[in-house]
Amino acid sequence: MEKGEDKHEEEQDQVVNPWEVTAKDGGKIDYDKLIDKFGCQRLEEPLVDRVQRLTGRPPHVFLRRGVFFAHRDFDEILNAYEKGKKFYLYTGRGPSSEALHLGHLVPFMFTKYLQDAFKVPLVIQLTDDEKCMWKNLSVEECQRLARENAKDIIACGFDITKTFIFSDFDYVGGSFYKNMVRIAKCVTYNKVSFLEAFSVLYTSGDFTFAVVQAAPSFPSSFPHLFSGKDDLRCLIPCAIDQDPYFRMTRDVAPRLGYHKPSLIESSFFPALQGETGKMSASDPNSAIYVTDSAKVIKNKINKYAFSGGQDSVEKHRELGANLEVDIPVKYLSFFLEDDAELEHIKTEYGAGRMLTGEVKKRLADVLTEVVDRHRAARAAVTEEMVDAFMAVRPLPNMFD
Amino acid sequence: MEKGEDKHEEEQDQVVNPWEVTAKDGGKIDYDKLIDKFGCQRLEEPLVDRVQRLTGRPPHVFLRRGVFFAHRDFDEILNAYEKGKKFYLYTGRGPSSEALHLGHLVPFMFTKYLQDAFKVPLVIQLTDDEKCMWKNLSVEECQRLARENAKDIIACGFDITKTFIFSDFDYVGGSFYKNMVRIAKCVTYNKVSFLEAFSVLYTSGDFTFAVVQAAPSFPSSFPHLFSGKDDLRCLIPCAIDQDPYFRMTRDVAPRLGYHKPSLIESSFFPALQGETGKMSASDPNSAIYVTDSAKVIKNKINKYAFSGGQDSVEKHRELGANLEVDIPVKYLSFFLEDDAELEHIKTEYGAGRMLTGEVKKRLADVLTEVVDRHRAARAAVTEEMVDAFMAVRPLPNMFD
Repeated sequence: MEKGEDKHEEEQDQVVNPWEVTAKDGGKIDYDKLIDKFGCQRLEEPLVDRVQRLTGRPPHVFLRRGVFFAHRDFDEILNAYEKGKKFYLYTGRGPSSEALHLGHLVPFMFTKYLQDAFKVPLVIQLTDDEKCMWKNLSVEECQRLARENAKDIIACGFDITKTFIFSDFDYVGGSFYKNMVRIAKCVTYNKVSFLEAFSVLYTSGDFTFAVVQAAPSFPSSFPHLFSGKDDLRCLIPCAIDQDPYFRMTRDVAPRLGYHKPSLIESSFFPALQGETGKMSASDPNSAIYVTDSAKVIKNKINKYAFSGGQDSVEKHRELGANLEVDIPVKYLSFFLEDDAELEHIKTEYGAGRMLTGEVKKRLADVLTEVVDRHRAARAAVTEEMVDAFMAVRPLPNMFD
Repeated sequence: MEKGEDKHEEEQDQVVNPWEVTAKDGGKIDYDKLIDKFGCQRLEEPLVDRVQRLTGRPPHVFLRRGVFFAHRDFDEILNAYEKGKKFYLYTGRGPSSEALHLGHLVPFMFTKYLQDAFKVPLVIQLTDDEKCMWKNLSVEECQRLARENAKDIIACGFDITKTFIFSDFDYVGGSFYKNMVRIAKCVTYNKVSFLEAFSVLYTSGDFTFAVVQAAPSFPSSFPHLFSGKDDLRCLIPCAIDQDPYFRMTRDVAPRLGYHKPSLIESSFFPALQGETGKMSASDPNSAIYVTDSAKVIKNKINKYAFSGGQDSVEKHRELGANLEVDIPVKYLSFFLEDDAELEHIKTEYGAGRMLTGEVKKRLADVLTEVVDRHRAARAAVTEEMVDAFMAVRPLPNMFD
């Protein structure tokens, strides 16, 4: 098992894995600690600059502002790319019954940027099988949700000539299933360290889905796309809670004759109530949904967005806002693209010259624009387009 | 979980499950005890008579001599059949590197009889995925072995208009995979009793394959055959060590809206060295293989077949043979079809009037004929026939 085995410790101060994200005593997730614990690498400025140089376009907001803050061997992807060797992107989503919220869009907005910047193919896995297994939902309902979620994903602007979206229920079989068994075989022979690495209750069903989620990391799982390209590298943009799955995958890769997949990992988009973990699907007031109206967005922000401002205007003018815990500023740092304006807000707000109400108003405008744009794009996605993105087909121009 | 949970007992006198068959202290498997422990039903004479009445043909040797000695709800299959409701047969095999031995042929010879007698369709699963998982064999090698084993199976005389043979690596996906997830979901929610029921070290990989083996028990796993026939019953001929897999399947069936599959279960074809369990694949001298020549068969029987005869001719003439432990007589009871001749041998040999050498000679002749017939039939099986049996296709005349 590679560096980063996350042994079960007596005093576990924060829990981050595919099934749980909990900060210590209601505090913030300590991402520096997480990097050390997982053993992944910090995504630092020289690497961001290199992306700009190689792609000839400014790095995405999420990259230059450290939303994607960690990686595994992303530099190797860039080394190969520099020598003319392309790669493919792989990301995914567990289709759920709820409308998507802004946090769900983060990896897809970033992946869209990566696809455009590097001009590479992309596979998107919809794990409807896993959702069916663990939620009280039928196979048919999970497949319906997968299609609905596919519309939101397509609305992010992916290039149909370079993108294959698949539902596990539709696609598992053939070469993909063979890779699942090959992976399971490696994992089983190394079971103890695998189980240790997860350090969570590890049920049989999870085991199977770890393998289902690992398979897309290997090009031979997509013979209609990558036949004869076993040497192709894979880059996975994901939130850092998925790291344990792919640590297993990276462990297995060389034994099956593939490159280890590279990862580029994000922090979590925080809940309106504060930065203690991921947003909660069970509390609709903890997140801005892509279906929220301008009025709902404004109300949610005013009512629930945790403020770093002071209790009274007088005190605020004197002390300024605590930007470290302020959710409106945090949200703006994700979605306000203008660096100068963001800097201005932080300076003025931090110095107490700008009030919470003003910042919240600006945020409501920014998010309303993001959500409106998404809603319009989604409304334009037809069933035929979903069929086209999900068709098992070759993509002859995927590297152009 | 239905009757027959096989709780882990402090003093376990014999072990019979899909992974291990061991009698107590090198003695014989106690099949009566097994029926009580598993909670299946004894297959008694009235049921055998009923088969004869319903099918209008004499019951197979394996049925009238108690090789298939236990069942679960076989009577329900017959009740439905009597009212004009047909069923389908499901059996299978884990393709292994070794040539098949006579014990491997037993379930297929019997299944062939059932197909002919009841005029029903049959699905045969080749679990190349499971063999790949647990043996040191590649995916490709397991698929090659599956095809080779398919030739032996086809040589048993199955009707191509009623028979679908499939390799898991080829076939898992689509409706079959959806059923796997549906089954896994039921099993996971009831995990504790499921694990208890197996009372063996239960690894994650096994769990998956239990589900792979359960799926063919439900007609919707074969939409090209049984579309719209969710009410179709399934009868599974198998050796009794597979009972735990199908106990789980029967537990799940009503929750998914299907009939519980019925089982008709055989004892084990014993090793030449004596009736202590199944034959060992690792000792070629413990079994007669379908590739053995007449000379090899004769030598193996003379050298290794455990005899119930006495040490000296004088003592034998005086005491007679112990038929209970005599392997030649046991083997003859499987493969010598003439009831009168078998009775004659048992009487004469048991009384000491016939010697071991004579019985062994007769057995060598009988087995040579079986093996020669099989070898000739297998030689006539072409690659095109294998393709035809394994093609995913409708079988329009399968109930004729």
